Amino acid sequence: MKPKHPSDSVTILTDLVLPGETNPFNNMFGGELLARMDRAASITASRHSGRECVTASVNHVAFNSPIPSGSIVSVEAKVSRAFNTSLEIFIDVWCEDRKSGSRIKANEAIYTFVALDDDGNPVSIPAIEPETELEKQRFEAALRRKQLSLILSGKMKPQDATELKALFA
Amino acid sequence: MKPKHPSDSVTILTDLVLPGETNPFNNMFGGELLARMDRAASITASRHSGRECVTASVNHVAFNSPIPSGSIVSVEAKVSRAFNTSLEIFIDVWCEDRKSGSRIKANEAIYTFVALDDDGNPVSIPAIEPETELEKQRFEAALRRKQLSLILSGKMKPQDATELKALFA
Amino acid sequence: MKPKHPSDSVTILTDLVLPGETNPFNNMFGGELLARMDRAASITASRHSGRECVTASVNHVAFNSPIPSGSIVSVEAKVSRAFNTSLEIFIDVWCEDRKSGSRIKANEAIYTFVALDDDGNPVSIPAIEPETELEKQRFEAALRRKQLSLILSGKMKPQDATELKALFA
Amino acid sequence: MKPKHPSDSVTILTDLVLPGETNPFNNMFGGELLARMDRAASITASRHSGRECVTASVNHVAFNSPIPSGSIVSVEAKVSRAFNTSLEIFIDVWCEDRKSGSRIKANEAIYTFVALDDDGNPVSIPAIEPETELEKQRFEAALRRKQLSLILSGKMKPQDATELKALFA
Amino acid sequence: MKPKHPSDSVTILTDLVLPGETNPFNNMFGGELLARMDRAASITASRHSGRECVTASVNHVAFNSPIPSGSIVSVEAKVSRAFNTSLEIFIDVWCEDRKSGSRIKANEAIYTFVALDDDGNPVSIPAIEPETELEKQRFEAALRRKQLSLILSGKMKPQDATELKALFA
Amino acid sequence: MKPKHPSDSVTILTDLVLPGETNPFNNMFGGELLARMDRAASITASRHSGRECVTASVNHVAFNSPIPSGSIVSVEAKVSRAFNTSLEIFIDVWCEDRKSGSRIKANEAIYTFVALDDDGNPVSIPAIEPETELEKQRFEAALRRKQLSLILSGKMKPQDATELKALFA
Repeated sequence: MKPKHPSDSVTILTDLVLPGETNPFNNMFGGELLARMDRAASITASRHSGRECVTASVNHVAFNSPIPSGSIVSVEAKVSRAFNTSLEIFIDVWCEDRKSGSRIKANEAIYTFVALDDDGNPVSIPAIEPETELEKQRFEAALRRKQLSLILSGKMKPQDATELKALFA
Repeated sequence: MKPKHPSDSVTILTDLVLPGETNPFNNMFGGELLARMDRAASITASRHSGRECVTASVNHVAFNSPIPSGSIVSVEAKVSRAFNTSLEIFIDVWCEDRKSGSRIKANEAIYTFVALDDDGNPVSIPAIEPETELEKQRFEAALRRKQLSLILSGKMKPQDATELKALFA
Repeated sequence: MKPKHPSDSVTILTDLVLPGETNPFNNMFGGELLARMDRAASITASRHSGRECVTASVNHVAFNSPIPSGSIVSVEAKVSRAFNTSLEIFIDVWCEDRKSGSRIKANEAIYTFVALDDDGNPVSIPAIEPETELEKQRFEAALRRKQLSLILSGKMKPQDATELKALFA
Repeated sequence: MKPKHPSDSVTILTDLVLPGETNPFNNMFGGELLARMDRAASITASRHSGRECVTASVNHVAFNSPIPSGSIVSVEAKVSRAFNTSLEIFIDVWCEDRKSGSRIKANEAIYTFVALDDDGNPVSIPAIEPETELEKQRFEAALRRKQLSLILSGKMKPQDATELKALFA
Repeated sequence: MKPKHPSDSVTILTDLVLPGETNPFNNMFGGELLARMDRAASITASRHSGRECVTASVNHVAFNSPIPSGSIVSVEAKVSRAFNTSLEIFIDVWCEDRKSGSRIKANEAIYTFVALDDDGNPVSIPAIEPETELEKQRFEAALRRKQLSLILSGKMKPQDATELKALFA
Repeated sequence: MKPKHPSDSVTILTDLVLPGETNPFNNMFGGELLARMDRAASITASRHSGRECVTASVNHVAFNSPIPSGSIVSVEAKVSRAFNTSLEIFIDVWCEDRKSGSRIKANEAIYTFVALDDDGNPVSIPAIEPETELEKQRFEAALRRKQLSLILSGKMKPQDATELKALFA
């Protein structure tokens, strides 16, 4: 399979925050944002792999700043690293004020998807070739995150996580 | 006010069609698509004008081909022409198969928004300068559509609609 | 097939505007209204034709006045004209204040549907016989709107649109 | 206050059952129907009283026959009896096949609402004068239902429920 | 079949009231609560019977106190009595203030479900053995409610309702 | 402030998976589950702290097994560790077959919330005292997860994460 670039499958989901999607503080409800990120990331996973993909794990989501009702929210999902049958998606969320147009980074998240063949078994997917500086950084860090995830789920021993261990040396 | 380009305010809303958003034929429910187009277009209207904008009319929506459940739907909204206090938004909808990646134009729509100041009165907005060939064609046609809309609502006499009359000459 | 009257298939969808269906101005969200009109009109289309019907186009929707949260909204959909395999539905929307009972026309819309047989092919439908004065006016105007729609989509030449041309003479 | 007729405030909510509103049997989800009946009945209560009204109790709902996905559902809500500050609403639900047009009574329900003044206190409302035979029957039975409701909630002793007791004599 | 205890199938659905689920008074919308109670009760019915169950009737719902937006709502559904193929579910709804933690009984409801076999026919279910004092009271009263329901639907003559008649003696 | 036990604030949200909440594989849509977990966890956070709480991060969510449409899903949220102004919530998700009653662990997740005072500033919360063996294990691991989170966000140097480093020794 020919490797692909992150830009080949990037997905942008820009939408409003309507009053029915807010929490008691009049900000976007966290669960609604988690759902939008899941939808955008699953589209990116399908576009990269040409396969049905299911969410395997949500590795990290940081809610840095609340998103007020009425804001424009852009969810941008990009492949950060493709493994054999799974791929990590990095999601950046931007919050834009409808009137001033000012735009801030509201949060970011990392989801992992698994690609499935028609029988529902994991299937090989194309490799990814990062291009920008940021894509390259995230590509590198993805391996450490994968090791970490394997350790947390008991599937890898900490001492075997070479890249991760190097962090603490 | 400095004129702007359509690319300055283009909005892309890419999302899945989930089973809860379908009609009895297992295709995307028309009302759900109308709602997504309205949200994307209202974001474009705010981005161009820097103002609160409300939907004034839906001028034309052609449903060319049904969108099956599970598809990836991209709604792309661009300013086609800015008038004094109102602006016309042209919306292209693309339907992408999740596995094959094949992508077809599913429908297009034209919405008109009015920009409002803080007291809720119509307010002047920047002009638009089309750049691509398609943007220029749509810019030209927008004037005829506006005349037509004024005639249909009884606010202009057919014989005063110079550009439109030329079509029938 | 025996012709039918508009009153045989009229559909009334009266419902509240709840807080979860509003836009940032605390008025009914445009997309929600478009969806309700689509549902009511598709019921009218089925009732007239006895067939499955799909939305072919939204020809015109004028948002004359905003509908405040908490209002009672009545969507009334009636066949304005039946063609060979398609039919035009005229929709009147009334907004009623929950306490005073005052009722105003909030907007109107025109949708076109196509009737399909069990294989999904367009199929002939009964003619319509307008009865009231308003029904007759809308019946007449429907032909001009159809010509206009054909011209806008490039399927008819302006000079062949006899009824429409007469408007500009 | 001048008495009113049931036909002055009747509310009709006709809508489709979409796939997202079904239960695991592919029929309309009971909770969705309960919600639609509550909305229609609360509109009828406002129209009769000219007041804000809140649901006080749901007295009886019989689900006689399941409503398949894709059906047309008509919820018709009418005042059956007005008491001093409360009113009983009788709701008939009709299920219509989208293609054959055949229409059956799918279920019926009885809701009670209380009318509130601007401070949120119960307030007097107009009397109701039933006109049709069915309206008269339901008007009579409403008194027995009210006594029953008072007994069930411990606010009336069974032996004081004159009309209800007569049933068992 | 071995009898079961109410505690074997009790279902607790604790959730927030979000702004999109409120009525114009900023309290939880009645229809939303009716839907949550229906979902919780249908889970209890399945757990007790090990069968698919459908809502047969809603026998009584008293809305004692409004539930403000932002509250924590606990819906607790328990079998109050099992008959041959149907069962009565008693639902208690608690409203908890998110900050003070104070908790009040907001309303209660009684639903009846029917258990179905794989062909959709009513099927026998296990008996219930109440344990607590409250469970025993509700078990006793259920028989009178069933008789009442049969009378209201014309399926039993009032004079045959022995337990119910005793109330009025 | 007096320490509390995890059982003081445990939250159980048991609900059905309806057809409108599924993905194209007819399993529960990942985003819907993320939203339910967020709601349950935020209730637990409020109950423990007696404060308004906002989601700070989602630390880990593993989707072990798909949840079929029609299943009963129980989301159980418990405080695993309270820090000064933030608290970690551990969420276990159980999937129960409606007919067989068989119940499996479908996934688990870890969310972090911050408690806020009335001005929106972080505020001290009670400590937690784990009781069961599982609660104690999760309490211990929470510190390592917090260090990890601080490292990932660049707020702590790996060599200062004493507890975490010990894992790799």
